[in-house]
Amino acid sequence: MPFELTILGSSSAIPTSTKYPTAQVLNVHERFFLIDCGEGTQIQLRKYKFKLLRINRIFISHLHGDHYFGLVGLISTLSLLGNKNDIHIYSHSELKDLIQGQINYMKSEMEFEVIYHPLNFKKPQIVFEDEKISVTSFPVKHSVPTCGFLFREKKKLPNIRKEMIEKYQIPIKNIQAIKEGADFITESGDFISFNELTIPPKEPRSYAFCTDTAYFESIIDQVKEVDLLYHEATFRNNKKELANQTQHSTAEQAATIAKKANVKKLLIGHFSNRYKETDGFLQEALAVFPETFLATEGNTFNIKQTK
Amino acid sequence: MPFELTILGSSSAIPTSTKYPTAQVLNVHERFFLIDCGEGTQIQLRKYKFKLLRINRIFISHLHGDHYFGLVGLISTLSLLGNKNDIHIYSHSELKDLIQGQINYMKSEMEFEVIYHPLNFKKPQIVFEDEKISVTSFPVKHSVPTCGFLFREKKKLPNIRKEMIEKYQIPIKNIQAIKEGADFITESGDFISFNELTIPPKEPRSYAFCTDTAYFESIIDQVKEVDLLYHEATFRNNKKELANQTQHSTAEQAATIAKKANVKKLLIGHFSNRYKETDGFLQEALAVFPETFLATEGNTFNIKQTK
Repeated sequence: MPFELTILGSSSAIPTSTKYPTAQVLNVHERFFLIDCGEGTQIQLRKYKFKLLRINRIFISHLHGDHYFGLVGLISTLSLLGNKNDIHIYSHSELKDLIQGQINYMKSEMEFEVIYHPLNFKKPQIVFEDEKISVTSFPVKHSVPTCGFLFREKKKLPNIRKEMIEKYQIPIKNIQAIKEGADFITESGDFISFNELTIPPKEPRSYAFCTDTAYFESIIDQVKEVDLLYHEATFRNNKKELANQTQHSTAEQAATIAKKANVKKLLIGHFSNRYKETDGFLQEALAVFPETFLATEGNTFNIKQTK
Repeated sequence: MPFELTILGSSSAIPTSTKYPTAQVLNVHERFFLIDCGEGTQIQLRKYKFKLLRINRIFISHLHGDHYFGLVGLISTLSLLGNKNDIHIYSHSELKDLIQGQINYMKSEMEFEVIYHPLNFKKPQIVFEDEKISVTSFPVKHSVPTCGFLFREKKKLPNIRKEMIEKYQIPIKNIQAIKEGADFITESGDFISFNELTIPPKEPRSYAFCTDTAYFESIIDQVKEVDLLYHEATFRNNKKELANQTQHSTAEQAATIAKKANVKKLLIGHFSNRYKETDGFLQEALAVFPETFLATEGNTFNIKQTK
């Protein structure tokens, strides 16, 4: 089952003709979670062949325009496409005041509701979960209230080895208990251990998203050992002071968080358009954390099951 | 002096990966008027090398999202770029309620005001003029109140033929009067006619923009004999009934308006994305009005001075 991230936008506040503001899609088992929704997100979704009607949960880190100005356009298009699924938005509570007027203006033709889920900017909180995944928001450090998001697969139960069912004549009624950790005693009184009967489940995969944020060590605990971490890198080290003033990070700082959190891979993005190329960001981060990659429009990062 | 139109977006309500929603820039003597501002307009402006800081008058035909969702992003970017010129928006009065909340959210950092000029949807009205140009709004026929816009150069005064000044020893104090139509009597009493003394001014150039609208013959009087008419053509003739229901036009209808108004050139756009190509629109319009062109992203139409 896929667990893969596609980058729709990599620019910071001012987009360019090739760099869109922040937006990403996480495909978790063919469910599509949209993370931030800068202007032009619907155009990027089409460009990279996503079905707009599959989007119904949207996570907005904070209320700077480059992270949400694409919402009303996307919602309008969903309405025109005949969408009937409610759209759930996880964001600062003020978002509703900012966009609901525009939504009301088109509402007579909408066959779905927009449901707002306010985030908690004081402490981590599970904001969504189902049988397959949980999404946790956690505060980061920016000039306005901002959350990161951690997407983590739920741990599955182990599978029974099919050959064992026949070998030990295990009744169907015992299967669930064995999956949950029980051993088995055969009719003849032999003790068969849980470990012999089952195949361990795959390790849950995880993705964490942190933008916009200053260097903030509280993030480390939240993203510890994730398979993939996106951490903003608006500036390079030559603008460390400016990063600090504007509550953004440098590429080196993003890599330092990745290293301290012992994540498997790091993606950096949200590049300031004062830099004409992005290789310098990569070089700076690689010096600290070798498994760093650039979050560039259209790139997909597939998190494979490792065991 | 240039009088030229650049197309930033040609799609109807649902943009695609290559077609942006409606937006155009009219360059009148190096003043840049933005006409409609769909999502992604700021990205298109950059793509086609316009200086965002040169934009400060924006004309919004109506409040369907594909004609104004790019406004807040553009205003946000203007603020980040350090713009200090007030931004004038000519639109339905309700626009302010729809977007001002988002503008207020960023306002502490803005060094300019957004000034709203409400349009009149009952009758034509001059909404802007200076010494070089006038802009007139006029109602068209759509499912919500919608205006077209007519941009017309002001008629200049004629120039004095320089050689005449010397020949007849014309004093400087008489020049303005001659330009305004006076004849001249020399010291020796000879009568020199205005026509002999002056070179006629160039004919004023004009551009009219009509979207979204059903076939509506009242438009004809407003756009009579303009150099360039943009008229929406959302559908082809095979969807004439749907055009009628949704208060849009077919390519043939757009061409019929152009023909009846005796305009010089017609541009068609606002193409429904149900059509996979645009040549069919062009063929349909050319059959009625031979000087028809497609309004396609990035195309510039230069209106030359003819005499």
